[in-house]
Amino acid sequence: MHQPLPATNSMNGAESLVRTLVDSGVEVCFANPGTSEMHFVGALDRIEGMRPVLGLFEGVVTGAADGYARMTGKPAATLLHLGPGLANGLANLHNARKVPVPMVNIIGDHASAHQGFDAPLTSDVAAFARPVSHWVHSSPNARSVAADAARAVQAARNAPGQIASLILPADTAWLAADRPAAPLPVLGPAPVSDSAVAQSVAALKAGGPVAFLLRGEALRGRALAAAGRIAAKTGARLICDTFVPRVERGAGRIRVERLPYRPGPALEFLEGTQTLILVGAQAPIAFFAYPGQPSELTPPGCRPLVLAFPHEDGTGALEALAEAIGATAPGKASAHAPPALPADGPITAEGIMRIAGHFLPENAIISDETISSGFPFYPLNETAAPHDSLQLSGGAIGDGMPVATGAAIACPDRKVVSLQADGSAMYTLQSLWTQAREKLDVTTVIYANRAYKVLMDEVAGVGLGSVGPRGQSMFDIGNPDLDWVKLAEGMGVEAVRAESHAALAAAFKAAMGQRGPRLIEAVL
Amino acid sequence: MHQPLPATNSMNGAESLVRTLVDSGVEVCFANPGTSEMHFVGALDRIEGMRPVLGLFEGVVTGAADGYARMTGKPAATLLHLGPGLANGLANLHNARKVPVPMVNIIGDHASAHQGFDAPLTSDVAAFARPVSHWVHSSPNARSVAADAARAVQAARNAPGQIASLILPADTAWLAADRPAAPLPVLGPAPVSDSAVAQSVAALKAGGPVAFLLRGEALRGRALAAAGRIAAKTGARLICDTFVPRVERGAGRIRVERLPYRPGPALEFLEGTQTLILVGAQAPIAFFAYPGQPSELTPPGCRPLVLAFPHEDGTGALEALAEAIGATAPGKASAHAPPALPADGPITAEGIMRIAGHFLPENAIISDETISSGFPFYPLNETAAPHDSLQLSGGAIGDGMPVATGAAIACPDRKVVSLQADGSAMYTLQSLWTQAREKLDVTTVIYANRAYKVLMDEVAGVGLGSVGPRGQSMFDIGNPDLDWVKLAEGMGVEAVRAESHAALAAAFKAAMGQRGPRLIEAVL
Repeated sequence: MHQPLPATNSMNGAESLVRTLVDSGVEVCFANPGTSEMHFVGALDRIEGMRPVLGLFEGVVTGAADGYARMTGKPAATLLHLGPGLANGLANLHNARKVPVPMVNIIGDHASAHQGFDAPLTSDVAAFARPVSHWVHSSPNARSVAADAARAVQAARNAPGQIASLILPADTAWLAADRPAAPLPVLGPAPVSDSAVAQSVAALKAGGPVAFLLRGEALRGRALAAAGRIAAKTGARLICDTFVPRVERGAGRIRVERLPYRPGPALEFLEGTQTLILVGAQAPIAFFAYPGQPSELTPPGCRPLVLAFPHEDGTGALEALAEAIGATAPGKASAHAPPALPADGPITAEGIMRIAGHFLPENAIISDETISSGFPFYPLNETAAPHDSLQLSGGAIGDGMPVATGAAIACPDRKVVSLQADGSAMYTLQSLWTQAREKLDVTTVIYANRAYKVLMDEVAGVGLGSVGPRGQSMFDIGNPDLDWVKLAEGMGVEAVRAESHAALAAAFKAAMGQRGPRLIEAVL
Repeated sequence: MHQPLPATNSMNGAESLVRTLVDSGVEVCFANPGTSEMHFVGALDRIEGMRPVLGLFEGVVTGAADGYARMTGKPAATLLHLGPGLANGLANLHNARKVPVPMVNIIGDHASAHQGFDAPLTSDVAAFARPVSHWVHSSPNARSVAADAARAVQAARNAPGQIASLILPADTAWLAADRPAAPLPVLGPAPVSDSAVAQSVAALKAGGPVAFLLRGEALRGRALAAAGRIAAKTGARLICDTFVPRVERGAGRIRVERLPYRPGPALEFLEGTQTLILVGAQAPIAFFAYPGQPSELTPPGCRPLVLAFPHEDGTGALEALAEAIGATAPGKASAHAPPALPADGPITAEGIMRIAGHFLPENAIISDETISSGFPFYPLNETAAPHDSLQLSGGAIGDGMPVATGAAIACPDRKVVSLQADGSAMYTLQSLWTQAREKLDVTTVIYANRAYKVLMDEVAGVGLGSVGPRGQSMFDIGNPDLDWVKLAEGMGVEAVRAESHAALAAAFKAAMGQRGPRLIEAVL
């Protein structure tokens, strides 16, 4: 039996798909295509309105779509090649699912009549997609592709954002379709009930120590302003998770405390809280389990209370709550007092954060995958110029540089600063090439400590007394040392190595004054 | 509720696991651990007999375990961090499943009591594992880990080799276990029935054109010698798949023809064959579906006949068949006539293959991920020094350099030559760092054509008339060009660029005369 012949005089499935995506507001496609996606590429080529951005590895593609969505609130499309291409993008889809962001994955599959033959690249694409997707569908024929695409965008955009994975068998791309499908209505954030607001009012009026745990929209704009008014009026604390998808920080913004990473410090941090009001967040959970320590970090005697679930209108809820308690005076905003530069000398993690905060331009975006090197010095940028901070929300390392890439595509007029641990950087270093090709305004600072330092820090935490050389070799990523200047230059990104605070400050300051991708290896 | 405390006076689950693996003959662990696998690392540290090899990305880890298994026939362990760490290794597990090879994946998971809380790194680990695994199990408690490990090794070693994925919740690693488990019996290749041999005898005696399609063990050693005797006696053709996991080639070996990649040429190649005798192979299938072309490549009028299924003893079957037809005279072995060097001038894909074949040392291992650049020139090495050739068996690009890495760990006394397309190389370039750390004797030659050339070649095949600049930008991986010398040096591997045949020949010859990792960027 031969495969059917392609559409000739009419629109094909791929064209109906691309037109539908464009009509539904999808403007960017992060892509790493293969043979089975050629008709989609052909459609991208012929149809105006969708910018294709090539990644040389699929982890870059999915992580960039995450960063783009965090900054725009809109889904990008990804284009992935069969099961293995999707597989390479799964870790950053895991992260994106945990944010969550809207995203439409288009995953090519073998032509329908080819799927039963166990060709080398045959795999269960839907099985790969399911663990990271809120919505999975395989188009059964070319004439249904457009409607499926409209449904995928709808699923992606439903609040608070979902991962929609549309599987596109190659023949459904090349066969004849009818027409694009019209955009479908999208469910925005659900309104929060009066009773939810009333419960929070009661908790605040009860007078015991109250803290708000904020996530999602609640860490930005009107929501954050309302939270600030509530805090000013009531003395309630404003807290965010250790890793948040996006938070507005810096001068003029309301200060939000960051929950510590490890269970012990997190419990101490929350100790005495009587009510923990959740706005788009879940009750706090330890990142990892440790022997003899709890998983749940809500301290004994503290009651978690949901003001807004993640799919609900946290902004409206915070504003209603502020109004209900008469919190009209503005909250206390951070001063504009960028951190002082460190003294010259060997580079420290604190020094990097000081330098980045000192020179940070107004309205910059920080993609923060500093992990253990960044935690203690995070507060320093509270008084830097106003900026957005994007963090490793799903815990799967290797999203910092792709997220920076997507954020730069989303916001071409804003400087992106990618603060990046070296071990994690190696997972998706191909991001630098896309930054070079697209001439993105991203400055990457590599924390070159030449170790999986977070693991070294964990030896005691997990109850291992000590680890000898064979075990240590699993945490040590030196021997040989990575040369990030060469790695970056190898992908077309200008780079420089800094081994002192003075050199780092000079390089970073220069990068802030220019446009285009740059990398600075900060040797710790 | 707090997590339970670790074992103190007795062996813990991780120790029982490592001891069981060692007792079952697992000698190497390719690893990229995280917090949840720290106790396994601690056990690796304390227990002799398992060599840990760190990869800076999980695709390196799983691909190296594949290469190791192809060369030794034995499973390596992999150590992977939770669902996302496994996800990063899935594409090369897909490849390994398609070989198939034996492999034991140890995948950490959150502690049992932590799994219900949707921590950032929580995911459905088993769901990620299933599509690429023949055997998946999550240890329910520390005392069962040893027995589970013995079963995992058994599953991995059952013929023809399977992917066994053992999920290890962190608490089952740190809590007290009893003792290691003894190795379990393994099912070797099943004997082929007399009737299967008799059917093949009849087909050969019937006199119509017969071809053998060989895979697995049938492409090596005694099996290949027996196939050669049969071919000499009967005139039957010996054929292998376009991509085989491993084949013994070169001077003194029996020549096996390679099935062309695209359906049209493959059908022509097989035209007139009356019986296609399958030894460890399936009937041939097109790699991709193309409009208007068939998926099945067995030509009309040709009968496929299974002499040995992949789990059966193809070697014994071929020897029995040779004996049954009185094929005692040795087959025609390839002469020793290495390809002539190309004339000096700009580098061509043919030139690279000639130079590699010309200088190839005896008993080398070629890891071949040359894809479209390699196909036409593959026959050149038929008369090179005897060697093993390992190819991209599952079609998921990015296994060439990891497979080379694992093969070098498996065979420290043999030179490994990694012939590598540049686009595919970017998927798992972190392999070079492991080659540097372990001082592996691998020479990588990058075919720097700066394109996904196979896709450019596919535009016509899939029925796209032409593709304009926006589409072409998805196939072109130049702009900016990758600099493989810098990328390799950035990971501690000596490298040189060659832009002429003379320069390439000099660099390759020098690399063959030295030990240790080297990379040559051959600019096409």
